[in-house]
Amino acid sequence: MQAWKDYQEKNKDRFLNELLDLLRIPSISAKSEHKADMVTCAEAVKQRLLEAGADKVTIYETAGHPLVYGEKIIDPSKPTVLVYGHYDVQPADPLNLWNSPPFEPLIKDGKIFARGSCDDKGQFYMHVKALETMVQTNSLSTNIKFCIEGEEEVGSPNLATFVKANKELLKADVVLISDTAMISMEHPSIDIGVRGLSYIEVEVTGPNRDLHSGVYGGAVANPITILAKMIASCHDENNHITIPGFYDDVVEATTEERKLMAAAPYNEDEYKTDLGVKELWGEKGFTTNERTGIRPTLELNGIWGGYTGEGAKTVLPSKAFAKISARLVPNQSSEVITEKLIGYFQSIAPAGVTVKASEHHGGEPYMTPIDSKGYKAAAAAIKDTFGKAAIPVRGGGSIPICALFEKELGIKIVFMGFGLDSDNLHSPNEKYDLFNFYKGIETIPYFHKRFAEM
Amino acid sequence: MQAWKDYQEKNKDRFLNELLDLLRIPSISAKSEHKADMVTCAEAVKQRLLEAGADKVTIYETAGHPLVYGEKIIDPSKPTVLVYGHYDVQPADPLNLWNSPPFEPLIKDGKIFARGSCDDKGQFYMHVKALETMVQTNSLSTNIKFCIEGEEEVGSPNLATFVKANKELLKADVVLISDTAMISMEHPSIDIGVRGLSYIEVEVTGPNRDLHSGVYGGAVANPITILAKMIASCHDENNHITIPGFYDDVVEATTEERKLMAAAPYNEDEYKTDLGVKELWGEKGFTTNERTGIRPTLELNGIWGGYTGEGAKTVLPSKAFAKISARLVPNQSSEVITEKLIGYFQSIAPAGVTVKASEHHGGEPYMTPIDSKGYKAAAAAIKDTFGKAAIPVRGGGSIPICALFEKELGIKIVFMGFGLDSDNLHSPNEKYDLFNFYKGIETIPYFHKRFAEM
Repeated sequence: MQAWKDYQEKNKDRFLNELLDLLRIPSISAKSEHKADMVTCAEAVKQRLLEAGADKVTIYETAGHPLVYGEKIIDPSKPTVLVYGHYDVQPADPLNLWNSPPFEPLIKDGKIFARGSCDDKGQFYMHVKALETMVQTNSLSTNIKFCIEGEEEVGSPNLATFVKANKELLKADVVLISDTAMISMEHPSIDIGVRGLSYIEVEVTGPNRDLHSGVYGGAVANPITILAKMIASCHDENNHITIPGFYDDVVEATTEERKLMAAAPYNEDEYKTDLGVKELWGEKGFTTNERTGIRPTLELNGIWGGYTGEGAKTVLPSKAFAKISARLVPNQSSEVITEKLIGYFQSIAPAGVTVKASEHHGGEPYMTPIDSKGYKAAAAAIKDTFGKAAIPVRGGGSIPICALFEKELGIKIVFMGFGLDSDNLHSPNEKYDLFNFYKGIETIPYFHKRFAEM
Repeated sequence: MQAWKDYQEKNKDRFLNELLDLLRIPSISAKSEHKADMVTCAEAVKQRLLEAGADKVTIYETAGHPLVYGEKIIDPSKPTVLVYGHYDVQPADPLNLWNSPPFEPLIKDGKIFARGSCDDKGQFYMHVKALETMVQTNSLSTNIKFCIEGEEEVGSPNLATFVKANKELLKADVVLISDTAMISMEHPSIDIGVRGLSYIEVEVTGPNRDLHSGVYGGAVANPITILAKMIASCHDENNHITIPGFYDDVVEATTEERKLMAAAPYNEDEYKTDLGVKELWGEKGFTTNERTGIRPTLELNGIWGGYTGEGAKTVLPSKAFAKISARLVPNQSSEVITEKLIGYFQSIAPAGVTVKASEHHGGEPYMTPIDSKGYKAAAAAIKDTFGKAAIPVRGGGSIPICALFEKELGIKIVFMGFGLDSDNLHSPNEKYDLFNFYKGIETIPYFHKRFAEM
């Protein structure tokens, strides 16, 4: 469609500047001090949807951060695509590792450096600009609905309530999400699955106060030592997870699927060099792509206790804490695994300490059938603009709301992500390539066209 | 000596107020931001020594924080007592656990709550007021020298240089230190030994940046998990320390000594209730007093890595850190053990991470012979003011400079501490009982009298 290309070429600088404005809002959903920024960001999203041509654009209050809805209905008899995205971002800590301030976007070497540039402001905004392109060129072929929430990074605690209360409003034929990555722009790919998540926090309490490690050391359980022992016990020498029943519900990938995965482009030396490690580390018997795609994992996300400042302090601390999360694969249940994790840490607590384990948030794993209309439309659209076939891959991340949409709206989800694994999602120096941003805006209208034709 | 008693009774409020002024100075040696406070505190100590009647009071600059020297020479033919103490204090973190601000001393229930109230401002200041008492009542029986340093809590890195360069200045017959505890005021005791110290910091680096735990989790070594496994490996199931050669040089206590220790007052239920723990935890085959007195230990003093803020962040961190210290008993060497600790952590590092282990500070264990003149004088002084015999005990803490004084000055150290184990040294809500403060001031002149008579 030359008209799309022309319109996008003419407006590309404005598209980018609008995104940069969005990135300047520190919409960190996890931190209560950013509550006002969340409202500011929701207002900005609303404004941009209106400008792009959406109707009925509304900010819905929730028990947490607000959600933005908008739609463009051209003909109720045409298929409807529900675009899901999120305007909230991960915390930017540790700040000292950023090369430029996380909320002052910097364009460098053809990349946008900012928290949220890829995850997910940069990606959901492609859909807003794709809508504008189709509206301005009178070429809409589907109805489009937008559901842009502000709590994805904290586990979407209030989305279920909204979806259940607004089934008619959200009624659609497919959910389209750009919140994942491709192998590379040379090797376009489509995620056919995302992992689920169970996230817990463990608090180990030893003595009722911080103690002098000389006076009491050796006579009372040190909560850091105990916590370390607990963590160490979670993986065996083959890096299998030892928590009883952890693998019970795992659907093993078929030999055929593993063969397909092994055929995907992967260079172990490049992978190691990119991460700066001499050796990789993971579950015995599985390749890197399998470890991050089809296998459940258990990672330590944070740990703290005792004196962590400058110099030395001879303290035997009262408490130690850890944040721990598992990634789940079909057919594991987040609720079941969270329960097993909590139960495990409580059950192995020795008598000298007390252990409190609690849930942060979770989400179910999800698989997109490659024979679904949505997947086929995405594959065709990528063929249209990349000139080559997309490779189906299993993504390692989690988009907890997929299972919710499928259950409540009875429709499939398709992931059309334009990020890269090297975009430093959740890390310092998050970036999104300008090429990918524009390629996404270019490709999305083709999705709608292809979907309407199926 | 009624004159001492009368003088002290008349001046007790002033004595206390002077101490409170000292406690208001946040002389935290470990934190560079308090460098100016260290100078202020040294100046205050100098001023107080002058007012108490000391001569030649001088602030000696060191490569770190300054040291204060003063003396009162009544007759070179009389014995000389060198009083050692320190005006620096431990960091006050975690601040939120203090019931009152650490540097705004609060008198409550007969106790002084403030950082340094017991360790060691409150204790070294008893000697300043004992000097004043003897000067004002013309009853000095020994020469007295004061060496009050500002780096004890960071391992006295510059004291050796000072002592070696000033052997003549510091020449004495005994070193007297009040920086330890008694069992209780009902059970006065004298520490006959202190443990040594080796303190290291371990830094584990996995990937070269923080990663998304979904995208990379399961495929790359998580530095927190690795560090936890390393820490867990330091103790076996009997809580013996597993570091190769750790116990090689330990002089085992004799059956006789262990029998004497078992006779000291100890109530396990009270001990557990005080600490708020259901069970104690320590090396199999040893009692609590043995675990903290005659056995070497290894304690985690701090740990941190990844996301430690509010809420959840799905990060696989680049780095994790721990502060770890060992307490040593005769005849272990701090240098040897530090080397073993560092070597251990480096040797067990798997290929997926790099481990940097470095030394914070150390100190040698020390024993005071109970047949030495100094010990006998301390025992007699306690009998004079408490009306009962002191129990010899082995202390769990470390006073790294003891070995230095013995080696360089050729004299013995005697510990006459008036603190309590429950004083929350190095912890929030450090306190020192007014009773103990005054009892110390009362007892110290008797030490000088008894020592002069021997």
